Amino acid sequence: MTPTIGVFDSGFGGLTVLRALMAQMPHARYAFIGDTARLPYGSKSRRTIARYAAQCAQFLVNQQGAEFLVIACNTASALALDAIQDAVQVPVLGVIEPGAEAARAASRTGDVLVIATDATVQSHAYAAACRARGLRALEMACPLLVPLVEEGWTGPLVGDAVETSAAQAASAPPQVAASPQVAVTAEVIRIYLAELTAEAAALGMNPDVLLLGCTHYPLLRPLLERAVPNGMKVIDSADATAEAAVRLFGQQDAQKHSPSAQDQVRCFATDSVEKFERLGSRFLNRPTGKVELVDLGG
Amino acid sequence: MTPTIGVFDSGFGGLTVLRALMAQMPHARYAFIGDTARLPYGSKSRRTIARYAAQCAQFLVNQQGAEFLVIACNTASALALDAIQDAVQVPVLGVIEPGAEAARAASRTGDVLVIATDATVQSHAYAAACRARGLRALEMACPLLVPLVEEGWTGPLVGDAVETSAAQAASAPPQVAASPQVAVTAEVIRIYLAELTAEAAALGMNPDVLLLGCTHYPLLRPLLERAVPNGMKVIDSADATAEAAVRLFGQQDAQKHSPSAQDQVRCFATDSVEKFERLGSRFLNRPTGKVELVDLGG
Repeated sequence: MTPTIGVFDSGFGGLTVLRALMAQMPHARYAFIGDTARLPYGSKSRRTIARYAAQCAQFLVNQQGAEFLVIACNTASALALDAIQDAVQVPVLGVIEPGAEAARAASRTGDVLVIATDATVQSHAYAAACRARGLRALEMACPLLVPLVEEGWTGPLVGDAVETSAAQAASAPPQVAASPQVAVTAEVIRIYLAELTAEAAALGMNPDVLLLGCTHYPLLRPLLERAVPNGMKVIDSADATAEAAVRLFGQQDAQKHSPSAQDQVRCFATDSVEKFERLGSRFLNRPTGKVELVDLGG
Repeated sequence: MTPTIGVFDSGFGGLTVLRALMAQMPHARYAFIGDTARLPYGSKSRRTIARYAAQCAQFLVNQQGAEFLVIACNTASALALDAIQDAVQVPVLGVIEPGAEAARAASRTGDVLVIATDATVQSHAYAAACRARGLRALEMACPLLVPLVEEGWTGPLVGDAVETSAAQAASAPPQVAASPQVAVTAEVIRIYLAELTAEAAALGMNPDVLLLGCTHYPLLRPLLERAVPNGMKVIDSADATAEAAVRLFGQQDAQKHSPSAQDQVRCFATDSVEKFERLGSRFLNRPTGKVELVDLGG
């Protein structure tokens, strides 16, 4: 029996974590649930988030047979990991600790910048996880980045006039013309990073890692890598979590009973199935297949 | 006894409608509730929205003594006006019909552009209300505008290089230097309007009105007025709704028993009181005062 890994997010951004998991463990089965009826979690109380997250975890374990859970939601990882671990009898992995661990491995100066949603920043979960590893972290909320990703104003940046010098543009392959939309996203990133690096400098920090603390941000990775100061590494919690999952659960993948493609991933959502199917494939980098609607109650 | 007007929104954007109401009826009392625990309504089913909206309406009428209700939420106006009218015994006014009526009064060509959130556009409530008045309406969702407003990337645009010609810049008073943030918002608006006007032209339309179908958009009005083609009027549902409210409820204001300032408005929210207080004053154009937390259940 091929093991099933359950992946949970408040929305569909966590599909970037699922994508990273599938790249690392191609022989597992996956069940993904996005609690789209009740997002965003970020504006809700810890108690409410814990209740919603426990319901989703129980759905994955009790109804989908998940043997491990990955909480691909920064807010739930920050505020409800204990509650989820109490609610189910299987191992549970969040995205915060693997992200902080990857930052520790990558940083030489010990100073780390974290960008995330407002809710994740207000939880200060990344700062705490970094501090526990001897790192100093400066966090900043970047509320425009999620809607820019959901609008699809990302994409390749070859030849982009805002961020590309003439010499770079001349040598770059002429794959995709710069669009005004991508130029907007690049400018928004420039504004956010300018503010964040100025604040870090004012605090006497010397950061050499930018940690992406939101599951939407991997889709901005090319733009972010182009925008960071020279020598700064971009670390992605989705990738870091997939690598941690391999260490925790990876031996299960060795059985290599590869499921058939259409059986490998089942996606569930509590609402907005159409939007999930329409946008999810960009996050997963392959079609989500039919997304099944489930009702977990109020 | 000074009458109380109840104003309901899923969030705090509806404070722009409250602001317009207070300008038109300065002697009324107001009770405003933002159902911030359960926003966004746009991703939820009609039945769920109707249930939430009815609970908010009943709170305003039964617990706050509201004698009239203004539904300052485009999604609830589009999908739940009937349900709200069934749930309470007082007159109820939504924002869609007044907005469409104002567009009819302003348009000479009969062709109208509507910008709104994705949920409002998908409901096609503005298109239907315009069609009922003999107008042709072309609707477009602009999902980036709400987060740009909530980030505060609005503000005066005097001297902005993106949207201001040299002649305009020379004649404009040098009040406020352009910021990169405001330039981003101006560019996002330019991109959206270019797409919308191109689509209208392809359909053989000759629009002369831009109808703002989202309660956040009045804060972008200066930028929008600068970005529309020459001769196009910008019509705002918040203002139009306040004018319709005066026609419906206005005689109640004639008593002119002006409440004291601190008694005039009570604001309630179902969650995120801090964000409401922090951002709400920009929408209301005065402090919201203390926002009271209420629990309406699941």
